[in-house]
Amino acid sequence: MTKGMEKGLVSRLVVRGESRMVLLVMDGLGGLPHPETGLTELETARTPHLDDLAGKSLCGLVHAVGPGITPGSGPGHLALFGYDPLEWDVGRGVLSAVGVGMELTPDDLAARVNFCTVENGVIVDRRAGRISTEENARLCRKLSSIRIEGAEVEIRPEKEHRAALVFRGPRLSPFITDTDPQRTGLPPLQCQPLPEGGEEAVHTADLVNEYLRRAAEVLSDEHPANMIITRGFSKMPDLPTLDRLYGLRAAAIATYPMYRALAKLVGMEILETGPTISEQVECLEKNWGDYDYFFLHYKHTDSRGEDGDFQAKVRCIEEVDAVIPRILALRPDVLVVTGDHSTPSLLKAHSWHPSPILFHSRWERRDEVRSFGETACARGGLGIFPARHLMAMMLAASLRLGKYGA
Amino acid sequence: MTKGMEKGLVSRLVVRGESRMVLLVMDGLGGLPHPETGLTELETARTPHLDDLAGKSLCGLVHAVGPGITPGSGPGHLALFGYDPLEWDVGRGVLSAVGVGMELTPDDLAARVNFCTVENGVIVDRRAGRISTEENARLCRKLSSIRIEGAEVEIRPEKEHRAALVFRGPRLSPFITDTDPQRTGLPPLQCQPLPEGGEEAVHTADLVNEYLRRAAEVLSDEHPANMIITRGFSKMPDLPTLDRLYGLRAAAIATYPMYRALAKLVGMEILETGPTISEQVECLEKNWGDYDYFFLHYKHTDSRGEDGDFQAKVRCIEEVDAVIPRILALRPDVLVVTGDHSTPSLLKAHSWHPSPILFHSRWERRDEVRSFGETACARGGLGIFPARHLMAMMLAASLRLGKYGA
Repeated sequence: MTKGMEKGLVSRLVVRGESRMVLLVMDGLGGLPHPETGLTELETARTPHLDDLAGKSLCGLVHAVGPGITPGSGPGHLALFGYDPLEWDVGRGVLSAVGVGMELTPDDLAARVNFCTVENGVIVDRRAGRISTEENARLCRKLSSIRIEGAEVEIRPEKEHRAALVFRGPRLSPFITDTDPQRTGLPPLQCQPLPEGGEEAVHTADLVNEYLRRAAEVLSDEHPANMIITRGFSKMPDLPTLDRLYGLRAAAIATYPMYRALAKLVGMEILETGPTISEQVECLEKNWGDYDYFFLHYKHTDSRGEDGDFQAKVRCIEEVDAVIPRILALRPDVLVVTGDHSTPSLLKAHSWHPSPILFHSRWERRDEVRSFGETACARGGLGIFPARHLMAMMLAASLRLGKYGA
Repeated sequence: MTKGMEKGLVSRLVVRGESRMVLLVMDGLGGLPHPETGLTELETARTPHLDDLAGKSLCGLVHAVGPGITPGSGPGHLALFGYDPLEWDVGRGVLSAVGVGMELTPDDLAARVNFCTVENGVIVDRRAGRISTEENARLCRKLSSIRIEGAEVEIRPEKEHRAALVFRGPRLSPFITDTDPQRTGLPPLQCQPLPEGGEEAVHTADLVNEYLRRAAEVLSDEHPANMIITRGFSKMPDLPTLDRLYGLRAAAIATYPMYRALAKLVGMEILETGPTISEQVECLEKNWGDYDYFFLHYKHTDSRGEDGDFQAKVRCIEEVDAVIPRILALRPDVLVVTGDHSTPSLLKAHSWHPSPILFHSRWERRDEVRSFGETACARGGLGIFPARHLMAMMLAASLRLGKYGA
């Protein structure tokens, strides 16, 4: 929308208030047209409430990072929260560790772990047959017996075959390579220092390789999970909180660890909620009086898109549509419905296509869009804009930004 | 649309692939509405194939440099090729020299030359009656006898009254003024050093003035071309290649020297082609298997616009429309049709108006645009965007960019 908004400008204009905002993220919402109908998942879904709301809102398309760029969930959400995703880099390891509730100091080094199956020295299954979360927990307890010199190591189970690994000690560097080769038929890789990490990276890679050598021993009599592979070594970024940046008491209603982790990193309170969207809205209703800004995260649109299941993604969208009246009944000053990136069923993956966005506020104009869909949004009153501007727009429409200049 | 996409981000995300892209540039495509019909050249032209394709594509408007800025052909094309035109400056002299096949080292200094007619000390014709290219070649051979101290000088004919001049030697500076006064009634100017060029500019201006004094002697018995004037002194910019930046084996199918030069500067292979658009497409067909990215340049839309010949520009557009089916028959993964700038017949010159653009890919959405024209494109799904984003968009839609962030 505009280039180089002066850094810190929005923060300087913030005034506190009593208004309430809801950011409803349908993960991976945007799609591509079905070859037979020419309609995307969102355009195919029966969404009477969202369509009605679109008629009373501004619509548009939003880029998380920029034209052509496919965002991961980290940059996708950080941009929606008002953080420049090119300035703030949150590593996969940090997201995993924070997601399972581990506290990280700036010195700690975190990695994402997969249990895997190794036969004759090569990986034959990068997910160890998707072992159960309980089996995962048992193996993590077993791995906790490992002691290495130079760092304390903690490993905690995530879901199925995934775990989070944290090294705690002096001189740890994130500038080391993954040991996950990202495909089968190869051995787990050695961890290598990257040139920009200097001596500390050499030291860190040694520690990681020593730990993994010991892990192989500990898991040698297990099956199918007889090894671990690591990726996304990273340290905690020093993200300023939403309170500090934008004067917001913010809360997250999210069911998946990674999104709870992202929310926590920007200083949101993580609310306890049941797993369904209806229970998530119940949580919103219950906590309505206590926060300024609610981040409501719905995961399944992305998951079904990644499965390549067009019709299942359609049904997920319809499921969310059904709760819109309950959110509106709370009379939010601003309600935004969008995605953190697109996940077209046809691509079975995150994509670069901008996300449809619906921006509802009594202090906003209207446009000619009368249904919530990608094609209609392309002609909406918001145009196509970078997601990092969304926070200022939400603050403004909830009357929380003062005037710039005399 | 978006602020300073982090430098190098797109390059870091590139993955190589087998997909094929075509960028069809109709030079100076965009226009202004005819006062009688209210339709631009493109809107007046009968373009059944482009209209049909628009219905299966995303459309929009694209700025080469920025709102209000009229681009020369250099920045216009560099932006489309994925180079920020404000960062990379390619001088007129370099374009001329590379265009006629001269090899330039980073030390060489190139200028664009016009043969002109001088009477009683003042220029009476800046183009020497548009002498023939053969006469030009004869005069260049004659000028090649000149030897000056401090640099080797080479002059080569372009078309008609135009030539390229290259100085080779130590301590040459591009910070010197043109000797072309840009209008008749004035004498050829003395070459002056510019302050930012320091001592080297003083030295260079002396060399140039010495050379031009000798050229005047050599040409004194000629008519009408009895002098040369110079402009656009410049050195070779250190442009990274498309291969290095974007992993692309790129080829150019262009008939005019300047566009071939621009393509060469970014590392494209220059393919041999006949002069008509039909022969250019034949060249595309013949080389289809050998490159990832084809730049197909059609010159006449710009030339007829500069002539102010509205109807002739309309006919040129129709000529290109006729070959669209042959390009589509190659099944490119991405086909983009646009201009490097607008050249409205009513202005008889390059203009600042954004160029209509059509973006076709099976991995893109559709919009509601059903004909290819400026007014329709203004409501297209791509919105109005800076041309330097086009390369990322083309790479994405040909599945050649990985994900950003965890």
